[in-house]
Amino acid sequence: MLLSFQLQMESRMIKTDIIIIGAGPTGLFTVFEAGLLKLNCHLIDALPQPGGQCSEIYPKKPIYDIPGFPEVLAGDLVKNLMEQIKPFSPGFTLGERAETLDAQEDGSFIVTTSKGTKHKAPVVVIAGGLGSFEPRKPPIPVIGNYEDKGVAYIIRDPEVYRDKNVVIAGGGDSALDWSIYLADIAKEVSLIHRRKDFRGALDSVDKVEELSKIGKINLITEAEVVDLKGEDHLEAVVIRHKDQVSDEEVKPTDHFIPLFGLSPKLGPIGDWGLEIEKNAIKVDNAYDYQTNIPGVYAIGDVNTYPGKLKLILCGFHEAAIMCQSAYQRIFPDKKYVMKYTTVSGISGFDGSRKEAKREVVKSIN
Amino acid sequence: MLLSFQLQMESRMIKTDIIIIGAGPTGLFTVFEAGLLKLNCHLIDALPQPGGQCSEIYPKKPIYDIPGFPEVLAGDLVKNLMEQIKPFSPGFTLGERAETLDAQEDGSFIVTTSKGTKHKAPVVVIAGGLGSFEPRKPPIPVIGNYEDKGVAYIIRDPEVYRDKNVVIAGGGDSALDWSIYLADIAKEVSLIHRRKDFRGALDSVDKVEELSKIGKINLITEAEVVDLKGEDHLEAVVIRHKDQVSDEEVKPTDHFIPLFGLSPKLGPIGDWGLEIEKNAIKVDNAYDYQTNIPGVYAIGDVNTYPGKLKLILCGFHEAAIMCQSAYQRIFPDKKYVMKYTTVSGISGFDGSRKEAKREVVKSIN
Repeated sequence: MLLSFQLQMESRMIKTDIIIIGAGPTGLFTVFEAGLLKLNCHLIDALPQPGGQCSEIYPKKPIYDIPGFPEVLAGDLVKNLMEQIKPFSPGFTLGERAETLDAQEDGSFIVTTSKGTKHKAPVVVIAGGLGSFEPRKPPIPVIGNYEDKGVAYIIRDPEVYRDKNVVIAGGGDSALDWSIYLADIAKEVSLIHRRKDFRGALDSVDKVEELSKIGKINLITEAEVVDLKGEDHLEAVVIRHKDQVSDEEVKPTDHFIPLFGLSPKLGPIGDWGLEIEKNAIKVDNAYDYQTNIPGVYAIGDVNTYPGKLKLILCGFHEAAIMCQSAYQRIFPDKKYVMKYTTVSGISGFDGSRKEAKREVVKSIN
Repeated sequence: MLLSFQLQMESRMIKTDIIIIGAGPTGLFTVFEAGLLKLNCHLIDALPQPGGQCSEIYPKKPIYDIPGFPEVLAGDLVKNLMEQIKPFSPGFTLGERAETLDAQEDGSFIVTTSKGTKHKAPVVVIAGGLGSFEPRKPPIPVIGNYEDKGVAYIIRDPEVYRDKNVVIAGGGDSALDWSIYLADIAKEVSLIHRRKDFRGALDSVDKVEELSKIGKINLITEAEVVDLKGEDHLEAVVIRHKDQVSDEEVKPTDHFIPLFGLSPKLGPIGDWGLEIEKNAIKVDNAYDYQTNIPGVYAIGDVNTYPGKLKLILCGFHEAAIMCQSAYQRIFPDKKYVMKYTTVSGISGFDGSRKEAKREVVKSIN
């Protein structure tokens, strides 16, 4: 029974034509270009939703350099791309980071995620942007000992903090917004920032000021957390004030949440045997954006080549070119004749069909 | 007086940073990418309006492969691009074909059009698409003798045909639509087509059939014009019917308008000393899409390189890369640091300013 279950689990391998690592704009558009060639795609992303940075970091910011859009919000661009690729029914493995790449004897690859999900395909394309976004940590030597034991860099479930003492550190939007939010939930919220200046939306700064005045937020500026105390679990933070460096304050707390922003890391991809230069993957831009491992491509911000521009519009081009090469790899004997969507329309894998109103041929007698 | 006028004419040289030959989507987007680098552009196009094929050939057709647009009419894409480049106030020389390219001693170029307009810039980029669109001519040996003497391939001013006898040849939309239009203007409209089958919008075919039945269009099918007659001006067409090949019909007429579609020709660009391969200009795709003439670039459908795809989205990428190289050519000593539009916004040459809502920095005391 157990063995049969294990076998079943092992056989649960996601199979596709192209594994796309990274579901940002470039990864998403790859699905479209592959779809025109009748190739299926499956996307893997460490973030819980598609769109990469556009969804996670700046969904409400306008982008001005997407061709044909005088202005488009990053979140709307992602929405449009999701709509555009819908006919080609891509698969998604979200909230899981691609950890390992294993070349198979048959020339295909298996990509395994942080949660053990396995994906198999003859072609892998890395559209990983600047890498996976990881929280910036404050330089407190012991901080690693308290992670998940009172220290968190991301707030996943605010209820965890109900009726607790919470210390938040940071001076940007995340620190401001979570301080405001937790002021109603936690027993006490302290916001610690090195400066008096906060950088964020004006109404958030104003709101924090107001909550501080009525005692709902304990605002501690020109100070920073320099040490942590506690046996098995965090019990106190050690605060150093700018104007009294020698006199550190030990403040008892249940939780410490430094919100210093996210920083991109290439992560495990860096150990896959790919040629790396300046934290990016070297590709053959003179032909097909293939890496030094045949069958593995890198497109968008994650790659580098002479004259590289880290622009979304460049990722789109690289995706189109790369898919043609992938097609040749998957079907070495077939000759693909490119058709224009304006002429041939789009036939979705979901049975959908889009096409220009056709001319008729009609006889007049 | 005359001399001073001549000097004045000669000094009327349009000067800019980048001369763009071809005002299709790729040429238009080049203005945007150049504008981000504070470079001015001037576009030259043989067509009377910007947009290239998108405006001239298929403005009402949907395109499905522009990234971020699940569907966009070609004409709307052009409209959007015109709006996007507006802040960078491009110049236009329209309805004039770029005829000659002359390298100057100072490293710049002078481009002269079919109407003698001269443009000078340190950088020239050819974004000429498939070339200039020229009418397909029927294989009638003497036809050249009658051009502008009764024979026209494009109808510019329908009033020319008022109360005249007109023979139109062709079986597509242009032939159908102009026959319908001129039926109300001309004395007699004859539509001659080799087959009984017409290829066009259904309502146009139906309308021609109807006008033919009531005698407003003289429909002659399974026939073609094989010769032309007339002294100084066209006086008659010679028609050969399929079923009576030996017995040709001489039909008196004032005008003969063969509407057999447009066909792209590289044109004079082919004689500029550029390396040409399969009717396209070879460029260095491994770096900056420069041609064999330093300072002259080719982007979009007009260029070729290993793996080239003739897609609008590829032209956009090539434009972005090419502008960086142009910047280095124009300012060899300056180091340009790329800024993202989402971060830095857009400063138009017209004084306009677009930017994301800024974060504030505010002190809490």
